[in-house]
Order: sequence, then C-alpha cells, then structure tokens
Amino acid sequence: MDKPSTLKGFRDFLPEDMALRNEVIKRLKLVFEKYGFQELQTPSLEYAELLLGKYGEDAEKLMYLFRDPGGRNVGLRYDLTVPLARVVSSNPQLLLPFKRFQIQPAWRAENPQRGRYREFYQCDVDIVGSRSPLSDAEILSVIENSLDALAFSDFQIRINSRQVLFGVMEKSVIDQKKWFSVIRIIDKLDKKDKIEVEKELSETGLSQREIGSIFTNLRNSEPDEYLKKTILLAEKMGTKSLTFDPTLARGLDYYTGPIFESVIKTPKIGSITGGGRYDNLLKNLGGADLPAVGTTIGLERTIDVIRELNLIKVTPNQTQVLVTIFSDEFIQKSLSVAQYLRERNINVELYSNESVKLEKQLKYADIKGIPFAIILGPEEDSKGLLTLKNLEDKTQKTISKDDLLKKLKPDH
Amino acid sequence: MDKPSTLKGFRDFLPEDMALRNEVIKRLKLVFEKYGFQELQTPSLEYAELLLGKYGEDAEKLMYLFRDPGGRNVGLRYDLTVPLARVVSSNPQLLLPFKRFQIQPAWRAENPQRGRYREFYQCDVDIVGSRSPLSDAEILSVIENSLDALAFSDFQIRINSRQVLFGVMEKSVIDQKKWFSVIRIIDKLDKKDKIEVEKELSETGLSQREIGSIFTNLRNSEPDEYLKKTILLAEKMGTKSLTFDPTLARGLDYYTGPIFESVIKTPKIGSITGGGRYDNLLKNLGGADLPAVGTTIGLERTIDVIRELNLIKVTPNQTQVLVTIFSDEFIQKSLSVAQYLRERNINVELYSNESVKLEKQLKYADIKGIPFAIILGPEEDSKGLLTLKNLEDKTQKTISKDDLLKKLKPDH
Repeated sequence: MDKPSTLKGFRDFLPEDMALRNEVIKRLKLVFEKYGFQELQTPSLEYAELLLGKYGEDAEKLMYLFRDPGGRNVGLRYDLTVPLARVVSSNPQLLLPFKRFQIQPAWRAENPQRGRYREFYQCDVDIVGSRSPLSDAEILSVIENSLDALAFSDFQIRINSRQVLFGVMEKSVIDQKKWFSVIRIIDKLDKKDKIEVEKELSETGLSQREIGSIFTNLRNSEPDEYLKKTILLAEKMGTKSLTFDPTLARGLDYYTGPIFESVIKTPKIGSITGGGRYDNLLKNLGGADLPAVGTTIGLERTIDVIRELNLIKVTPNQTQVLVTIFSDEFIQKSLSVAQYLRERNINVELYSNESVKLEKQLKYADIKGIPFAIILGPEEDSKGLLTLKNLEDKTQKTISKDDLLKKLKPDH
Repeated sequence: MDKPSTLKGFRDFLPEDMALRNEVIKRLKLVFEKYGFQELQTPSLEYAELLLGKYGEDAEKLMYLFRDPGGRNVGLRYDLTVPLARVVSSNPQLLLPFKRFQIQPAWRAENPQRGRYREFYQCDVDIVGSRSPLSDAEILSVIENSLDALAFSDFQIRINSRQVLFGVMEKSVIDQKKWFSVIRIIDKLDKKDKIEVEKELSETGLSQREIGSIFTNLRNSEPDEYLKKTILLAEKMGTKSLTFDPTLARGLDYYTGPIFESVIKTPKIGSITGGGRYDNLLKNLGGADLPAVGTTIGLERTIDVIRELNLIKVTPNQTQVLVTIFSDEFIQKSLSVAQYLRERNINVELYSNESVKLEKQLKYADIKGIPFAIILGPEEDSKGLLTLKNLEDKTQKTISKDDLLKKLKPDH
C-alpha cells in the first residue's frame, strides 16, 4: 500500500483545527440554548429507502448507498431534515412545538471545492409544530444572534416568501406549470446580471412581454401578510439585518411560506445560512403532518470564512503550563508540581520523556503555544523554589509554589 | 414503506439523552485537557485497504465495507487506533510526544446487546513517541481522574505487563508457540473459575504439571522493573486504585509492556476502560515506527452504567424560563420580556404559538422540566408587572422586570 491518506473530500482535524471548530460549535450551541432549542442526534446510517425518492435523481447519485453486512440496503445521512422527519414520526410522544438543533456530519460525493467537502458538518435549527409567524421570527432572530456570536459584522438576511413569488407569477399571467422553473431562474439574479436572466427566461418559452411583466411585478411587490408579521416580530426580537428581497427564491421546491438566507459581503462566497417554512415536507418525507420552519447554517463554509477573516482568535492550546523534567532524578519533584497545579484546576502538560534535553522540552512548549514552562533542577530544588519561564516574552523568575499559583491563576 | 425506524443497533438521541451524553463528554474533555491532551478528529470513511488485514478475519466480518460512488473501496471507521496510526504517519511535522484524545463514533455490525451498539462512540487517550514510564503513569492517572470526574466511587484499575506474563510462561517452560493462546485463557480467570480455566488449558495440550507450574508462577510473580516504575510514578500522581494482577492479559496481542483495565464492582459489566503500551503497533499498521501507550474508555457502556446508577444528575433542560403568550394582543409584550432576559444571558423559550391556551403552555413547560414560566396578560400589563410562576412548587408572584432578573439570576 502507498503512503496511507484520507479519501478525497475527507479531512483530518488536527488539534489546531479542532480549537476553532470547537469554539464555533460552542458559541452556536449557547445561542440555540438561549432560545430554548434542545439538541438531537440521529444515526449516521439510515435505511436506503428512507433516503431515496426524497431529493431527486441528481442527489441520489451523490449518496453513499450500500448493503450492510446483514444485507440491508442502507445509506449515510445526506442531510438532517429527513432524520428529523423520521424522529418526529416515530416519536409521537414528542411535545409540540418541538424546537431542536442538530450538529452532525452528512455525506455527499460531490466534487470537493472551496468550502465544500464530502464529509461535512451540518447545523440545523428547526421548530416543528407551529404555524405562527412567531416561530419564523424566532428562527430569524437565532440566525442573526448566531452570526453575531461568530463575530460576523457585515451580513444581511435576505427574506422573501413563496407567496410573494407566486403573486408575481399570477400577476404576470405565467402558465402555472412553469412557475417553479421560472422562480429558479429569477433566483439567479444575485449572481448573474439581468440580461443573462432574461435570456434564460426567454429560453423557457416566455414572451418578452411576460418577462417584462415579471420584472415590473417583482419591483412593485411587497411582503404578504404573513411575511409582514414575521418581519415585524423578528425586528421586535432585535433582528436588525433583514432585507426584503422579492427576487430571492432558493432552489428547493418544498418551501411553503417565508424563505431566507444570509450573505456576508466579503468574501463573496454565496449564502452561509438558508432556510424557510416547509409545512408539507415532513409529511411528504413519510413523517407526521406537521408544519415546520427552520434554517441550516453552513458550518464548514462558516468556519472557512471565520478562519480567512480571522474573526475569532482561539488559543492554540488549552494547556497553561508545561512542567519540564530536568533529569531522571528530578522526575518526582516535577511530577508533584504538576499534580499540585492540576488539583487546582490548572491545565498542565508534564513532559513525557525524562531523557530529552531541557532546551528541546522548552522548544516543544513554544511551538505548541503553551505560554509558560516550569523548570525544576538542582539549583531550584536546593532553595525549595522553581523557575517559571514565560515563553512569550522569554523572561523567567525563580519563585515559590504559592507565588506560582498566583501567577498562573491570578483570580484565585 | 412501513413506519420508518432506525437500523438495528443504531439509536436516536433525543434531548433528554443528549443532556447526559454531553455532560459525560464535557467532564472527560476537562480531564484530558488538564493533562495537556489535545483533540483530534478523523474522517468516518477510510480506504478499505487501511482497515483490512489489521484486526483479523473475525473483525473484518463486522466491518461496514463498500464501494463509494467513485468506485473506491472504502469502509466506516472500526476503531480510533488505525486512524491515529495514519495521522501520525502522514503528518511527519507533528511534534512528539503527541498527546491526543479522540471522541468519535465507530461502526461494527455486532449483535446488539446491553452496552453494545453498532454505532458507538469511542473515547481514546494516547501518547505517541515516548518510551518513558512517565507516559504510562500519566495514562493511568488520566483514567483514575476520568472515573472520578464521572462520579464512580467503587472501581479498581487492574494492571499487569506482558513481561510478567512472558516471565511466567518462561519459568513454567511452556512452548513459546503456545504463549498467546495460553495467556488468552489465563485472562478469563476474572470471569470463570479456576477449574474451568484449568480444563481449557489442558485442552491446548498442556500437562497437569505445566498447568500447576503456571499457577504457582502466577501466584509468585511480581511486577517487572518498568511496571514498578510505572506504578510508582502513577501513585505519585495521586492514582489510588491500582491493583497488580498477574492474571490480567487482555486479549489483544499487540501490547508490548504494561496493560491495564478498570472495572467497577457493581453492576458487574466487565471493564469500562482498557489499554496498555503498544510500541510496535503504529508501525505494523503502516504508520511510523513510534512507541505509544494509551487507553480507550468505553463511552457507551460508561454512560449506560452512569444512567443505571444515577451517578450524574443533569438538568433535563438548559432552558431557565418559558415566556408564555397570553393572546395575540400580548405577543409583543411577551416577546420584549424574552428579549430582555436573553440579552442578559438567560436561556428563554418563548412559546411559539399564540393560539394555544395558557394552561397548555404551562403544562408544556412542566413536562419539559423548565423550572419557571412568565405570564403577561391584561392584569399584569395594567400594573407594568409580570407573573413569575415556579413550576416546581407551583407558587407564583407578580413582580417587576428588575425583580424578575434578580429571581432568575441571583448572582447578578
């Protein structure tokens, strides 16, 4: 076998990667919990039958489907919505409204590119069982708070509703059979210029008059009643970044009311969250007939942007101090200092090898980003003290154990 | 399709399950970080070639192997050791000793039973790159601290080493070809009685004299030099539950030095951690030639026991208060109270449906284990106050917003 490697589109997360990932997930969970959402996790594998026929043929080509050792047709989770539908349907005891968040990987055999991987975490927040605009507004407020918590400062939440788009279609007297394909083309207005979009529309057989009428009606359209209420309530919840955008359509056909996505201005990488109301989807997925509204937060893309913009600084290491080992004779002295500090809730790495030179041990701490190192050799020992080396400013002091604690835990 | 369900051996974790799982994982991470271990995550899927030929044929029957949509032979992660070997081998820049922990699911198509599932989280803690007993001792100290952190009070860490067992084999003049099979039978002494074990030994062709000699030598055996140092250092680190047990063998052939496992006395469910030193394994797995020592913590079994013994009490819900909606007219009043509390870092659920009766909203909070509910109707509104209902003792008080904050956040 060649040098073993990861599969294309799959990644290892080394400790320096995990630090940021964990921080992002921690901040998101705190927001979700502040709004009363609770965590759900579901299995990685589901019956293939549950996954198939829900997303269309193109999606099915991307699925990891196979026979398990017991001969069952199974597949890796493709998203978090189908499992939600299954959970709601198989747990009739669930209290409604069910407000859940779920942060777990999904798998799609897509061509890997920037921000897109074959194994990627999804992060979904949904409310199942309420038809009130209060729930749509809460999702919008959660999105804004999440992006705030992740230190994004320059974002917009674009919002529209299927009713607005249907209204435009109706007023423009478009054949109802063409509505979804026309809406999907209009959705491209944020990426393509108007002339290109007009061309695509005319290729679907629309007349110039119909196309002109669509653009006029888009320009003049206003939020419908439900969307107005949603926006009002979300704003009362402190949501400041909402922008009504009648051209926003989002590709998926299953939305039944408000639809929304959030975009950051730089870098231009498309939307980082997307969602809406989907009152028929759970039933169509084989679940219970319950209304729902929610959003997905594109976690991988979000993390990539946070790293690129350096929005969140994480300490590369939770370890506060490295206790070095001067020599074989001093192992127990070093060890008891390490133990003393750990008992006082300080994160201590004890260098795991007494036969490595002190200099190399200090370099190890430095490279790992551990801010302090403790040296305990014959000189320190003879005075009952130890040396604390600050690896950032390269200063050092020989001090007592008590003073050490004050240095490392000033709030103690 | 029938009512959709999870696959056999796969589980959903509803919010009430997640609360304990998250608490257990949080506590373990704090211990690992206190010892300077850092988190690693690896992909769910690996090349099948990486997984095959490492664990033996019986294991391979349990693997989820398949062809991905691109025609590659792949498999779901079977454990966390093979991925560790791959990571170490493909990242030569990694600083040694590499102290990592990893908490991720693995998949095995075993027959599900108590504490055993087809998708299960593993939790591994290892030090790669040190041949010093300091590192073995640290792993033992981490194990004891982990079990303490999980509120286990009645456990032992049994410890032995391959050298002790080889010494017994040598002194008892056993044919070297039989060593591993004999050691595997001796390992059963903690579950089977001596007569059964003797019978099994005689079935391998050992004479009564050889069997007698094995038992005499086991009784008289003492830790070898390396194990003595390990135990001494671990005890200096505060490890109190070590018991030298010359009959402990652990099935896996790859251990090269100390071996250890921890057992709780009730319920009798076998070991909940297991590990040892494996200096040749990483190389044999196709990785770099580096010594290593570590432990796995049987997370699913541990969580099952914690639940059974009720060792850790978790609040079923992180939500501190439900803000009810009196009626359509009062939505905005309720909403601004919710917002006021959320801005002060209180976890608030706003009931997502204004058309549900107050009584039902209060029942919802009660069933979900939310301790308080706020009511804001015409009576409260006319006085500029609100009613805080304690759902545990069923008392209620009509108070101001400021007093509400004092009640919900007494440390504020």
